[in-house]
Amino acid sequence: MVVVMQPGATQHQVDAVVAHIEARGGAAFVSRGVRRTIVGVVGDTDICFELDLSRMPGVATVLRVTAPYKLVSAEASGERSVVHVGPPDRRAPIGPGTFTLIAGPPALVSGDQAVEAARLAAAAGASVLRGATYRPRLAPPSPPGMDESDLRTLAEIGRATGLPILVEVVDPADVETVAGYADMLHVGSVNMQNLPLLDQVGRCGRPVLLTRGTHATVEEWLLAAEYIAERGNLDIVLCEAGVRTFDPAVSRALDIGAVPRVQRLSHLPVIVDPSTGAHELVVPLARAAIAAGADGLLVDVHPDPDSVLVDGRCPVAGAVLRELASVLRHLPPLMGRALADARRS
Amino acid sequence: MVVVMQPGATQHQVDAVVAHIEARGGAAFVSRGVRRTIVGVVGDTDICFELDLSRMPGVATVLRVTAPYKLVSAEASGERSVVHVGPPDRRAPIGPGTFTLIAGPPALVSGDQAVEAARLAAAAGASVLRGATYRPRLAPPSPPGMDESDLRTLAEIGRATGLPILVEVVDPADVETVAGYADMLHVGSVNMQNLPLLDQVGRCGRPVLLTRGTHATVEEWLLAAEYIAERGNLDIVLCEAGVRTFDPAVSRALDIGAVPRVQRLSHLPVIVDPSTGAHELVVPLARAAIAAGADGLLVDVHPDPDSVLVDGRCPVAGAVLRELASVLRHLPPLMGRALADARRS
Amino acid sequence: MVVVMQPGATQHQVDAVVAHIEARGGAAFVSRGVRRTIVGVVGDTDICFELDLSRMPGVATVLRVTAPYKLVSAEASGERSVVHVGPPDRRAPIGPGTFTLIAGPPALVSGDQAVEAARLAAAAGASVLRGATYRPRLAPPSPPGMDESDLRTLAEIGRATGLPILVEVVDPADVETVAGYADMLHVGSVNMQNLPLLDQVGRCGRPVLLTRGTHATVEEWLLAAEYIAERGNLDIVLCEAGVRTFDPAVSRALDIGAVPRVQRLSHLPVIVDPSTGAHELVVPLARAAIAAGADGLLVDVHPDPDSVLVDGRCPVAGAVLRELASVLRHLPPLMGRALADARRS
Amino acid sequence: MVVVMQPGATQHQVDAVVAHIEARGGAAFVSRGVRRTIVGVVGDTDICFELDLSRMPGVATVLRVTAPYKLVSAEASGERSVVHVGPPDRRAPIGPGTFTLIAGPPALVSGDQAVEAARLAAAAGASVLRGATYRPRLAPPSPPGMDESDLRTLAEIGRATGLPILVEVVDPADVETVAGYADMLHVGSVNMQNLPLLDQVGRCGRPVLLTRGTHATVEEWLLAAEYIAERGNLDIVLCEAGVRTFDPAVSRALDIGAVPRVQRLSHLPVIVDPSTGAHELVVPLARAAIAAGADGLLVDVHPDPDSVLVDGRCPVAGAVLRELASVLRHLPPLMGRALADARRS
Repeated sequence: MVVVMQPGATQHQVDAVVAHIEARGGAAFVSRGVRRTIVGVVGDTDICFELDLSRMPGVATVLRVTAPYKLVSAEASGERSVVHVGPPDRRAPIGPGTFTLIAGPPALVSGDQAVEAARLAAAAGASVLRGATYRPRLAPPSPPGMDESDLRTLAEIGRATGLPILVEVVDPADVETVAGYADMLHVGSVNMQNLPLLDQVGRCGRPVLLTRGTHATVEEWLLAAEYIAERGNLDIVLCEAGVRTFDPAVSRALDIGAVPRVQRLSHLPVIVDPSTGAHELVVPLARAAIAAGADGLLVDVHPDPDSVLVDGRCPVAGAVLRELASVLRHLPPLMGRALADARRS
Repeated sequence: MVVVMQPGATQHQVDAVVAHIEARGGAAFVSRGVRRTIVGVVGDTDICFELDLSRMPGVATVLRVTAPYKLVSAEASGERSVVHVGPPDRRAPIGPGTFTLIAGPPALVSGDQAVEAARLAAAAGASVLRGATYRPRLAPPSPPGMDESDLRTLAEIGRATGLPILVEVVDPADVETVAGYADMLHVGSVNMQNLPLLDQVGRCGRPVLLTRGTHATVEEWLLAAEYIAERGNLDIVLCEAGVRTFDPAVSRALDIGAVPRVQRLSHLPVIVDPSTGAHELVVPLARAAIAAGADGLLVDVHPDPDSVLVDGRCPVAGAVLRELASVLRHLPPLMGRALADARRS
Repeated sequence: MVVVMQPGATQHQVDAVVAHIEARGGAAFVSRGVRRTIVGVVGDTDICFELDLSRMPGVATVLRVTAPYKLVSAEASGERSVVHVGPPDRRAPIGPGTFTLIAGPPALVSGDQAVEAARLAAAAGASVLRGATYRPRLAPPSPPGMDESDLRTLAEIGRATGLPILVEVVDPADVETVAGYADMLHVGSVNMQNLPLLDQVGRCGRPVLLTRGTHATVEEWLLAAEYIAERGNLDIVLCEAGVRTFDPAVSRALDIGAVPRVQRLSHLPVIVDPSTGAHELVVPLARAAIAAGADGLLVDVHPDPDSVLVDGRCPVAGAVLRELASVLRHLPPLMGRALADARRS
Repeated sequence: MVVVMQPGATQHQVDAVVAHIEARGGAAFVSRGVRRTIVGVVGDTDICFELDLSRMPGVATVLRVTAPYKLVSAEASGERSVVHVGPPDRRAPIGPGTFTLIAGPPALVSGDQAVEAARLAAAAGASVLRGATYRPRLAPPSPPGMDESDLRTLAEIGRATGLPILVEVVDPADVETVAGYADMLHVGSVNMQNLPLLDQVGRCGRPVLLTRGTHATVEEWLLAAEYIAERGNLDIVLCEAGVRTFDPAVSRALDIGAVPRVQRLSHLPVIVDPSTGAHELVVPLARAAIAAGADGLLVDVHPDPDSVLVDGRCPVAGAVLRELASVLRHLPPLMGRALADARRS
């Protein structure tokens, strides 16, 4: 059972709902999005209890959800959610009505290249910048990890460009630090079921981008989102980035059908990462994603794309990026969406 | 090595090329499309031989192709091919510049329903009608198979609606009979590597629609097309219809990236079958296919869709079909394509 | 509902059962194995009808089967089946209690090599010889297909070695001819769902070896076997030969768990083809198959294995074959099985 | 390039090799197993340098390795490795010559059940006990995690039974604590590419069991092992536990061929987890694993197996466990292996 609070519900009203649930021997967990707070209820529930709750101040509705994921289920919400990224002066929406480009280099780059990549991303229409800070491939005697100075540089670039920043987290111990600089945290494909990491991002107070594991069913993906939501954070954006297949010619195959499937099963926004292994597929897959109804794109951008050959990534620049920018101006309006702009939202 | 003949090359010129190849101890196989004839050459070839051939009357160019598939390779053609389906008075093009809807019931239906399904398909914008004649699920004491009277009915519907007819073949022994009535033959997903069947459709003198096996790599798919082309038939349209994945919630996942991949590897047209298992995915996947650059769609249409539950098919009608028709009017022009019309082409 | 006849039931008794079913408005199909005849019943059935049938002469039992496959279901039989291959003077059993090696070249070989391959197979402990006759890769102007003289040669080798012969069929039109020479017909992986071919082998009067498609679930595999059984032929042996996976380093991955799964779901024997792409895996996978409880092996044997590079096959000879022969002598007895011997059975 | 030290090489000799490499401008990382130390060399290397190194005291050999993984490659070692688990008084070997059962409950159990599970495991022939401490499914307001008192309990059970203890780690921050109590650390399937976790277990000074991801190729698995080895820890045992497939009837399919493949590619021991989703498959798959040449098994044991339904695990007890114990007594000797005994090794 979930209790959906009214948009303007006060903290006092939420606390009263939780106290009422606990007084009846149940457990409650509160999940907050920018616009909506949902209280999950665990324990035996009867129809009288349900009625009582529905009459409490600040409660919009009480719902019984049949899906194994409750808080993120489409059943728990009358409408699809919008997640807002960034501080009030440069806040980018992700959700219905808009189309949002998140762009930036997929791996750590030096200061000058980071600035240039940010410029390219902004010129292409990005309203969120992606930045990388984790160094997985250090010479082994040094530990892998994150340098806080990289985070400071990214935050400066964000302020300079007027765009919020997305940063990937891989170690639960780093989440709090990253959340001090970044506007949105990214859980990558290999970490979709890393529970200690999901636990931390569930408590971090920042929107989260959750990429589907290359081996994960749609249900497992939504259960991972639920795990985050249960820890208090409902500002989750899903990212489809392709799945493993038997065709050795591609590292991942974009599962385009997952976009409309997720939109029927969950109220969360869903974006697409079209960089599944070949430069020449990025624009056709980006077009397909927009036409399939995605809420945005995550695109690797790099001023010198041929220098980035790690992990089968294929960042774009030059003519491909200009073609992508043109697609982003023309195609989303036909789907009833405006290209999101962080500075105007 | 392949010898590409000029568009107006005569049979005499083609014969002379073949004779020249055989006189040098090589083997030649002639593959004919509506607009283009290509002669494949097997045997030791040297540069002098290549020069000789390139100077023969009617020869456009001589090419060395590195792909394992030669005749269908993009290397063998300077431009993407158009395949024309149907007799001159109702001929539908499939290829660049147009967008072609092939629609009809996925399984055998009675006469009245067949007429009604054809009417629905035409109203939605179809320029080729799909018809089914094979009865796989007869009570076992009777053999499965095809009834020629079904073919006659389909041919009549084709004449009445003014649309060419696509018919699936499953038994090599039926190909000649089906080719006597149908305008295009369909090799379904499970038969993509049925060599005796591919051999027969390679000799049948009709355009062929070749659906990718749910388990086939793109290379295996193009090698199956090459097998048909080597037998003389270059009028091949490829159909992407989804692949097997680990997600039990869907029977097949549309591999949308296969559309731009195939268009880079081969000159053959490629269409998409968006009926991968759920009614509600048909329109989003159709939109994605158009945006990804597909040359057409194969859509299951049935006046009473809920009556068709075999094999995970999900034919559409009513509101879904009207939405699809609207998409077909508005989206292809944005990709530089006109909706194909059999009667005007 | 299935009617299991007693081992010694007469044709007259079977006919009476069928007549009784048809008189009640049902449809009956009779499936015959060497030791057992089962009558499938289609139509509305009630408990009285069931009682009537169970009292008819020659009827062992009447069963309601819940699996989607009826005749081949474990529910339809109190014990696992034995399939006998070959004429009475050289008959090889496949089933519980024995372990059967089927061996021979995977593709057509010349007369001398065929004789030598047969000698190698027999020396390794084979009780059934595999022979190939289909020529898929002829120069395209010639049709692919089968030459009856190849069948005659194989039949002679069978008589000379005293071993029954397994021959693959790929074209429904060839089944009757092949059945005139071969002792067992083989439906290969790509043809597991080729319905016209399954129909013909269901009527051919010979035991059938049905290889699992590289993309087929165990349920689809058993439904294909059911399709054969419904046409009258219950002498079916299943062959697990690996499935497609995401690991590009192997063409197929042996699904060893399919062996015990099939043995719980079906009464049919199941053997394993361990030639999934690398010589060095053949012996370890053969050992695993025996230990997992398989009823036999299908092994590619060739006097000059390095000359066979088609289709990722990896025939064995020399030291590997000697090691396999040693495994076959020592490991099956530990599983309570004797190595089958065609000449002694 | 890797430098393999002699079995008795001193720390002083290893330091001298590292110093020599660094003096030449290269980088060195030292990886220690119980019996062998290998020094990886990064940087430009020439034949003179190689000669110099090979003549240094304590150096056994200098090798150039072509595989992308160096330290764990079969090329880096003349023989397959043995990993020893536990303190000298109860040390269990895993590797050639022996066959090792690791058994215990797959999830956290209460004290009494833990003792009973340990008794069952020991009776079945286990020489390493598996214990679980991580609580992933706590009610969300509490963080998931580990309680040090659970570790103390496990360590007591280990001392009482005389068996070393395997404990799974999921959070890099817990590794040091777990290593203070456990004799071997387990990296589970979903964490195979969790780099911060691999980094920590690479530095923990305990043997590591590394389960293959359900979506990982064999090469990716060995690269994950290499990542651990590069951080100094060469005491790695690999565990094959099945991969994702398209068959919805099983959660994972055991890739039995991965056992002989890994043994050809790497010198590390490899064991098999046969609990891929159904009780009835555990014994047949365990037999197959032994016959395929695995060095051991990881089996879920639980006194009340039906109470454990999380994550598709299928722990065994009672008759199944007794059958497994019988298999372990009889089958490994036929493969030239003795069942490992922690107390006698």
